[in-house]
Amino acid sequence: MSTFDEFRPLDEKSLVEYIKATPSLSSLLGVSDDLQIKEVGDGNLNFVYIIVSPYTSVVIKQALPYIRCIGESWPMTKERAYFEATTLKKHGSLCPAHVPEVYHFDRMMSLIGMRYLEPPHIILRKGLIAGAEYPLLAEHMAEYMSRTLFYTSLLYTTTTEHKRAVAEFCGNVELCRLTEQVVFSDPYRVSEYNRWTSPHLDHDAEAVREDNVLKLEVAQLKSMFCERAQALIHGDLHTGSVMVTQDSTQVIDPEFAFYGPMGFDIGAFLGNLILAFFAQDGHANQENDRKTYKKWILKIFGETWNLFHKKFITLWNENKDGPGEAYLPHIYNNPDVWQLIQTNYMRDLFHDSLGFGSAKMIRRIVGVAHVEDFESIADAAKRADCERKALNFAKMLMKERRKFVSIEDVVSAIEQVDL
Amino acid sequence: MSTFDEFRPLDEKSLVEYIKATPSLSSLLGVSDDLQIKEVGDGNLNFVYIIVSPYTSVVIKQALPYIRCIGESWPMTKERAYFEATTLKKHGSLCPAHVPEVYHFDRMMSLIGMRYLEPPHIILRKGLIAGAEYPLLAEHMAEYMSRTLFYTSLLYTTTTEHKRAVAEFCGNVELCRLTEQVVFSDPYRVSEYNRWTSPHLDHDAEAVREDNVLKLEVAQLKSMFCERAQALIHGDLHTGSVMVTQDSTQVIDPEFAFYGPMGFDIGAFLGNLILAFFAQDGHANQENDRKTYKKWILKIFGETWNLFHKKFITLWNENKDGPGEAYLPHIYNNPDVWQLIQTNYMRDLFHDSLGFGSAKMIRRIVGVAHVEDFESIADAAKRADCERKALNFAKMLMKERRKFVSIEDVVSAIEQVDL
Repeated sequence: MSTFDEFRPLDEKSLVEYIKATPSLSSLLGVSDDLQIKEVGDGNLNFVYIIVSPYTSVVIKQALPYIRCIGESWPMTKERAYFEATTLKKHGSLCPAHVPEVYHFDRMMSLIGMRYLEPPHIILRKGLIAGAEYPLLAEHMAEYMSRTLFYTSLLYTTTTEHKRAVAEFCGNVELCRLTEQVVFSDPYRVSEYNRWTSPHLDHDAEAVREDNVLKLEVAQLKSMFCERAQALIHGDLHTGSVMVTQDSTQVIDPEFAFYGPMGFDIGAFLGNLILAFFAQDGHANQENDRKTYKKWILKIFGETWNLFHKKFITLWNENKDGPGEAYLPHIYNNPDVWQLIQTNYMRDLFHDSLGFGSAKMIRRIVGVAHVEDFESIADAAKRADCERKALNFAKMLMKERRKFVSIEDVVSAIEQVDL
Repeated sequence: MSTFDEFRPLDEKSLVEYIKATPSLSSLLGVSDDLQIKEVGDGNLNFVYIIVSPYTSVVIKQALPYIRCIGESWPMTKERAYFEATTLKKHGSLCPAHVPEVYHFDRMMSLIGMRYLEPPHIILRKGLIAGAEYPLLAEHMAEYMSRTLFYTSLLYTTTTEHKRAVAEFCGNVELCRLTEQVVFSDPYRVSEYNRWTSPHLDHDAEAVREDNVLKLEVAQLKSMFCERAQALIHGDLHTGSVMVTQDSTQVIDPEFAFYGPMGFDIGAFLGNLILAFFAQDGHANQENDRKTYKKWILKIFGETWNLFHKKFITLWNENKDGPGEAYLPHIYNNPDVWQLIQTNYMRDLFHDSLGFGSAKMIRRIVGVAHVEDFESIADAAKRADCERKALNFAKMLMKERRKFVSIEDVVSAIEQVDL
């Protein structure tokens, strides 16, 4: 491996040499010369290759020292691959059914060798745009979120392990800073990176920048994002970070992972489902008015939270005598107080999730990075109508989130907007 | 320095050798053989020596690998000296008037050489028991807390520096765990370490352990203590960690320092003032009914918060264009929104402080470590009366803290209890 002792971006040729020199990969793929290599990444932020041998297929992902985010490239530490690999392994150990297996990690090369998610796996966002239903989606996402968040929180871990892990993930600060900027800051100020459907939403974008109450709320959410080490969160859990088939759900790309508030993950997923919902009118046509599909999205939206709630509480009850030190069984020692703390914890987590979810929606409409759900609506006026509904709903949700008691209340509010 | 290349506890003889071999100390004290050494520490947790030379005096503090806390010794990493020295230097750079200067730190030996706080400096708690007034106390403590907390929070530091420092202080986990246990856990469960004035307070202690609402509140405070890296806090800011004269106030012993919630420091100080207040009836005698002194304590209590509030806001306003990234000036860009965020921030901090303050009061009455304010009341029945008033006030304050709008409301509530 003498040629791979310092970082260099691999191409299809050097990748073959790398694989041959790396036992954990070559033993999997076989040492045949019959490797097919296909580049599938977006090229200028990560290289992603599919390696096909007669025996199996593997994905090789290599981080480059920049990231695509603002149209063109932005310098960004390739050390993010370390946090991505570490999180894939940790979350994978907690929820192997929904996290692709890591076969190999090379920190020097910022290179991850991992399971190839074979067809018909597609990015969930693309499925939602196409109007495809995934009957197990809510169940799977609830399983993934409940297990990864519960087991990495102080409900399960000791303070000693928690602080060790928090310290380690403080190293992923550059990715945290990117989130701070693009989610919590830029949409609320004039920024060269912001964009929106113009001129249709010019006044809407301006209204966001001039809404004092909204800016107060987003400041509180930003502080929680920066200060509160509640669990090892994925950090970017939108519908583009999930690959699906009818019976498989796989969460990928946790390069933004760190110890942060659980609601940031839950909100990312739920908020992106709401975006998908409000984009449907833009995808409707004479063959399919998308009305049934919109109902399905709302069903998934509600079920995801409710199943998450149920699974999380079940894990908590099962592990109440476990290593977690947040709620010691000798203190919380009667059914009334146990119910009280769980009700309180889940209510706060629900409101956090709604808050972060609305922040994630707003930034996708008036911030730098938009979503294909809306971008794929060619008619700008139609797109703007969809976006405005989503934006207004998100603003209301951020400000009023503490008044919502159940996810059904949120569904009702969405249905009211969409009349 | 070959004899000091591994940790060993120093005695008066080896200390002289150590000083001679250590330029930063010997240059200060002079190399004369005329050093007087006096051991003043409590002996079995830290050694504290005063070194007097013809030129100056210095304090040498050496941490031992255990800590006195539960009557006898408890194993505790001597690495705490590193966090104590690091915090003394950081807080000292931010507020040199109220933090003793560090001349020398030796990590291997867990040894700090620092300013000798000459007479008439005494521990504030002893002054409060004696009934002494310190006219500058509120001003000085407000200055210390506002500067150390503001400048180490995200209101002033960048995320990059914040996460670096948070990671470093995650290393002080053993001391954090001790706080978790003795402040947030043991008082609320049966524990061999708990004690109280018995049998007088037997039912009161039991009532704490059976108060579901109180246990819910303390769980939320514990979570905030464990999860929220708001600022570099002292971590043990009771009236025994402050030395005073009529015109000097010096904060010592930050070995529990870490990035935690600001309210934990503010509450520790305010809560211990309330304990001092409720202990006064136990110190009253025919010569001095302590009524005037109780009014003075309440005045200091109120002034400390109000001056802290004023100074903190002033620092924030002065540094609104500084490196802090929590509230960017291009977002919080009009007087209304600026007022809104500051009002909101200070209200939350006020309620956090009242919550942590009440937790600190409760643990001093039914937990392992008591305060001399009460312990020095020889008559058990009289002591129990004082303690019960303080305990009941603390329980009410923890549960109802969000209803208090100003510190004057808290003062009124104390006065009502004390009728």
